Amino acid sequence: MLSPKIVLITGANRGIGLEFVKQFLLLKSPPKVLFACCRQPDTAKDLKGLATGNPSVHVLKLDVCDQSSIDNAKKFVESKLQGEGLNLLINNAGIIDRTNIYEASREEMAKIYETNAIGPLMVVQSFLPLLKQAARADFSAPMSCNRAAIINISTTLGSISENSSSGYYGYRASKAALNMITTNMSLDLKAEGILATAIHPGWVRTDMGGPDAAIDTVTSVRGVMAVMEKLQGEEGTGKYYAYSGHQIGW
Amino acid sequence: MLSPKIVLITGANRGIGLEFVKQFLLLKSPPKVLFACCRQPDTAKDLKGLATGNPSVHVLKLDVCDQSSIDNAKKFVESKLQGEGLNLLINNAGIIDRTNIYEASREEMAKIYETNAIGPLMVVQSFLPLLKQAARADFSAPMSCNRAAIINISTTLGSISENSSSGYYGYRASKAALNMITTNMSLDLKAEGILATAIHPGWVRTDMGGPDAAIDTVTSVRGVMAVMEKLQGEEGTGKYYAYSGHQIGW
Repeated sequence: MLSPKIVLITGANRGIGLEFVKQFLLLKSPPKVLFACCRQPDTAKDLKGLATGNPSVHVLKLDVCDQSSIDNAKKFVESKLQGEGLNLLINNAGIIDRTNIYEASREEMAKIYETNAIGPLMVVQSFLPLLKQAARADFSAPMSCNRAAIINISTTLGSISENSSSGYYGYRASKAALNMITTNMSLDLKAEGILATAIHPGWVRTDMGGPDAAIDTVTSVRGVMAVMEKLQGEEGTGKYYAYSGHQIGW
Repeated sequence: MLSPKIVLITGANRGIGLEFVKQFLLLKSPPKVLFACCRQPDTAKDLKGLATGNPSVHVLKLDVCDQSSIDNAKKFVESKLQGEGLNLLINNAGIIDRTNIYEASREEMAKIYETNAIGPLMVVQSFLPLLKQAARADFSAPMSCNRAAIINISTTLGSISENSSSGYYGYRASKAALNMITTNMSLDLKAEGILATAIHPGWVRTDMGGPDAAIDTVTSVRGVMAVMEKLQGEEGTGKYYAYSGHQIGW
């Protein structure tokens, strides 16, 4: 049963991130503390609405492109946890482009990479001591999303082997890079008991996915959480799953 | 037989790039014009030495991180070719890091991505009209490195599916991204008759590979050129080969 005690989610103000917060609160064993991060908490009305009725939810500022905001978020989380670890870190924040080979620009490519690939790595680097703390606290358990895990929200558009339609130059390249970073993390952190896996949430009706997308956020997040629940031990780390439970080729 | 008429190589001042220039000059049918690009032609003594005895070799400035230098290089190439196309573009310039999960920095990750992934895309974007010109000039031929081709120098360290040792965070991520960009290019340019494939040159004794590397530049470039010779038609594009001729998993 998926029941991580301490959870942190980036990009939690809307779309899939916001739906994660909702569904974590609906678990039989909801998180004791849920850190819902976003770039601009001041304008995150829906998220703040959720937090109002749920004292376990902390809304905090975290912009993956701004190192000081990551550092400040980490300080805040540490102060709240008082020695407890972080069980589940969901790198959900991300941006997209729809540029083709003629339109791709140096600046946009760099910005997307900073957000979608460097950002998650920097967040993990910063919160790693807290993930290790959680892994140690439950040291006899197999790796899992309840013990200590990094879930990087990826996309099938990041699959090189399944690329059959091109486009999205910045997005695709950044997500292939994030997939590589995910396998690196899984190899580096296996011995510490920390799982790292990439999950494709589907093509979802959000600001990013657009109104014509295939599924709604509820279906997407239900699927992703079912996948997270099944990730166990060495078999569960360094993988690339779709929300449907299918494994995707790199 | 490998015999492209007009060739452009980035990072041609040393290592694998310099060896490409040497071996192209030794072909039975050497290029009519070979544009050997590097960041600082003024200090590229070995390359300029080669060019002195070979009027087909033009040494020119091209820094993949400096858009104006790409634009200027393209203008120079156009002026030399006078309506002729570019048959073979080898994106060879690249940099490496050896950072682990604790050391990886925002700035270095960005710099490596700009050089190894954005740079090759921007070079292709700029020189694409000349590649199309070459493809059209030989429109009845199958795709090949003689007709019109982009070869992106990649690495097995860019393989996500074969990642078993982690490390090199910036380098690995940038090369996985370059591999994605390569498949995108192959899909986008197939209809134009332009081939795009990634090749791993081996672990080579160069400034990048270090003195303990497995093979010398001669062996590496012989292998890469043998692979390039074999790339033909739809079977030859969007692929990921080692210099040994083996195909690598993405």
